[in-house]
Amino acid sequence: MDGHTIRDATEDDLPALVALMRQLQYPNDAETVTDAHRNALRQLQATPGQRLLVIEDEHGRVAGTAQLMIIPNLSRNALPRAIAENVCVDESLRGRRYGEELVRYCIERAREAGCFKLALTTNRHRVDAHRFWERQGFELTHRGYSLPLIDVSTTPATGNEQAPV
Amino acid sequence: MDGHTIRDATEDDLPALVALMRQLQYPNDAETVTDAHRNALRQLQATPGQRLLVIEDEHGRVAGTAQLMIIPNLSRNALPRAIAENVCVDESLRGRRYGEELVRYCIERAREAGCFKLALTTNRHRVDAHRFWERQGFELTHRGYSLPLIDVSTTPATGNEQAPV
Repeated sequence: MDGHTIRDATEDDLPALVALMRQLQYPNDAETVTDAHRNALRQLQATPGQRLLVIEDEHGRVAGTAQLMIIPNLSRNALPRAIAENVCVDESLRGRRYGEELVRYCIERAREAGCFKLALTTNRHRVDAHRFWERQGFELTHRGYSLPLIDVSTTPATGNEQAPV
Repeated sequence: MDGHTIRDATEDDLPALVALMRQLQYPNDAETVTDAHRNALRQLQATPGQRLLVIEDEHGRVAGTAQLMIIPNLSRNALPRAIAENVCVDESLRGRRYGEELVRYCIERAREAGCFKLALTTNRHRVDAHRFWERQGFELTHRGYSLPLIDVSTTPATGNEQAPV
């Protein structure tokens, strides 16, 4: 670990988090913090097993984020599963191992929680993200299927949940 | 809908659910209900957005199950995401559309909750499961990566989260 601080996000982090979410390159995504973001953060904070993480640079600024979930599970002798979502490091700060630190942190927390695995999905076209996850020791074990539920004009075929890190 | 009952699982369903989880073909998975299963069900019931569903046959017996999650999210203008896990229909009852009914139910609940998509992962080697999800209108949009966190002797390369339905 380089010693960067990883902590749970607060409402004060929302402007930085909304800017990071825009780097996930969904079209028409919010430019500023809305009540929907504040409500989502509060719901997340109120949900056991959900954590919205931020990693700070040496100046205390948000350099990256990850949403870590520890999910109760009935298969695998009822060991919980961990899922990471919305993993993103600021474009201007890539290559400085913030992503690696976030991933190591998630692996440690998942292991402490007794999870049988840490899983994630990444858009099938994001070759740079695939390389990142493979470098972190993750294996391509599953296919990710999805059904869009909102207007397709805001749901591009190449929308991605995992930005390169 | 054929009119089969879909409802939230209770502790009384655990023997049937443990039997279904064994059909997911993980090695060394539990044969009987343990405290770990009871604890996992209680945690799931206490977690906002988590539902463990069962579908009953015409005799009131558990024919299949699905774990539906509605997850708070900061991307996509903070619309929530839905994830399905541990979808399984009893081997002896496949081909009777229980799986289709469970999936339609999950789609309806996800839509009501305002989710931008319903997503799931299925082991890359389960060709029968891929065909099922494609028949339900799901698209192969993502790669599923995972890192095992328990003894590899209990984590086969072909372990799958989605049985054929």
